[in-house]
Amino acid sequence: MFNLAAPTQTDWLERALGDLDAVLLDHAHCERKAAGMAVRLLFRYPEHGFLQVPLSRLARDELEHFEQVLAALDCRGVAFDRQKPSPYAGRLRERVRSREPGRLVDTLLCSALIEARSCERFALLAKAVPDSDIAALYSGLLPDEVRHHRVYLELAEEIVAAAAARERFRELAEWEVRVLNESPALPRMHT
Amino acid sequence: MFNLAAPTQTDWLERALGDLDAVLLDHAHCERKAAGMAVRLLFRYPEHGFLQVPLSRLARDELEHFEQVLAALDCRGVAFDRQKPSPYAGRLRERVRSREPGRLVDTLLCSALIEARSCERFALLAKAVPDSDIAALYSGLLPDEVRHHRVYLELAEEIVAAAAARERFRELAEWEVRVLNESPALPRMHT
Repeated sequence: MFNLAAPTQTDWLERALGDLDAVLLDHAHCERKAAGMAVRLLFRYPEHGFLQVPLSRLARDELEHFEQVLAALDCRGVAFDRQKPSPYAGRLRERVRSREPGRLVDTLLCSALIEARSCERFALLAKAVPDSDIAALYSGLLPDEVRHHRVYLELAEEIVAAAAARERFRELAEWEVRVLNESPALPRMHT
Repeated sequence: MFNLAAPTQTDWLERALGDLDAVLLDHAHCERKAAGMAVRLLFRYPEHGFLQVPLSRLARDELEHFEQVLAALDCRGVAFDRQKPSPYAGRLRERVRSREPGRLVDTLLCSALIEARSCERFALLAKAVPDSDIAALYSGLLPDEVRHHRVYLELAEEIVAAAAARERFRELAEWEVRVLNESPALPRMHT
């Protein structure tokens, strides 16, 4: 799916279903962070006009998802608060090159990868979660994740040729699987 | 209007009409920064559940305004790019107390002030700008600015009593006028 280098291992779904509240809380933080990253890129690259509208729209989607997940937490009586995050996104971005334009290309491709992995996992949750409202939440979020994945790839291809973007995506996708395999076994969206 | 300590001086409107493209570009940056500040507060105060949904919605509005102003710039053939900002927001926040809960209260009240001043100026532009599309853009943005002003005040009143919030707002409003009076005479939204 989306050229991820390996599918999610079966123990992730068991762990997620075993503490769905913790996964939902982590998911709320992930949506907030995704919005924060898109807004941060707007600030970092004002000279790249082509980024502005797509990333602004994407940030609005992420904030809307954040509000949807907050509503789901509220229905389940879970208060939004700090939570120990998984090291996934931070470790994934360790491979972002420090010099431009590599830095921007890699940042966009890491975001494309995070959207792809989230999409794969939302689909698993949509099928497996017994609570029909939560299952509906996850199937409802899928189309946006697919779109965001494509937006990030297309933005990367504005900066480097499509073949080079695909090749770098493949390298980062291999790294993403290693990051997941080395993650602590916490009930989180990305472990 | 909104208990601002003084109305905008007449030279601001002349200066703005004299270089409307510069003001629009500054306005785009202001909307982006307003969204950035709201998102930053989500990150800074995850323990304050009452902030999350209102600030997330507000950030979405600001991003939508950002996109609207980018479209207006595009229509006028002005490329979005870096621009020397006015010192307004930075100087305004010099008076934000460093210890909580004063820090959060003052940050919210400064945002309420910025929304109020923007609203006053959008109304001036809506009346005076000859380009009917730009005039319509500004009158269209007014209701959201009014709402955002109220949201920020109401959030501050979640943390301190309403009378204390009003008193602090008055102090910061006096400071805001001084900051404006000491601003360089650039064609910007807040000088």
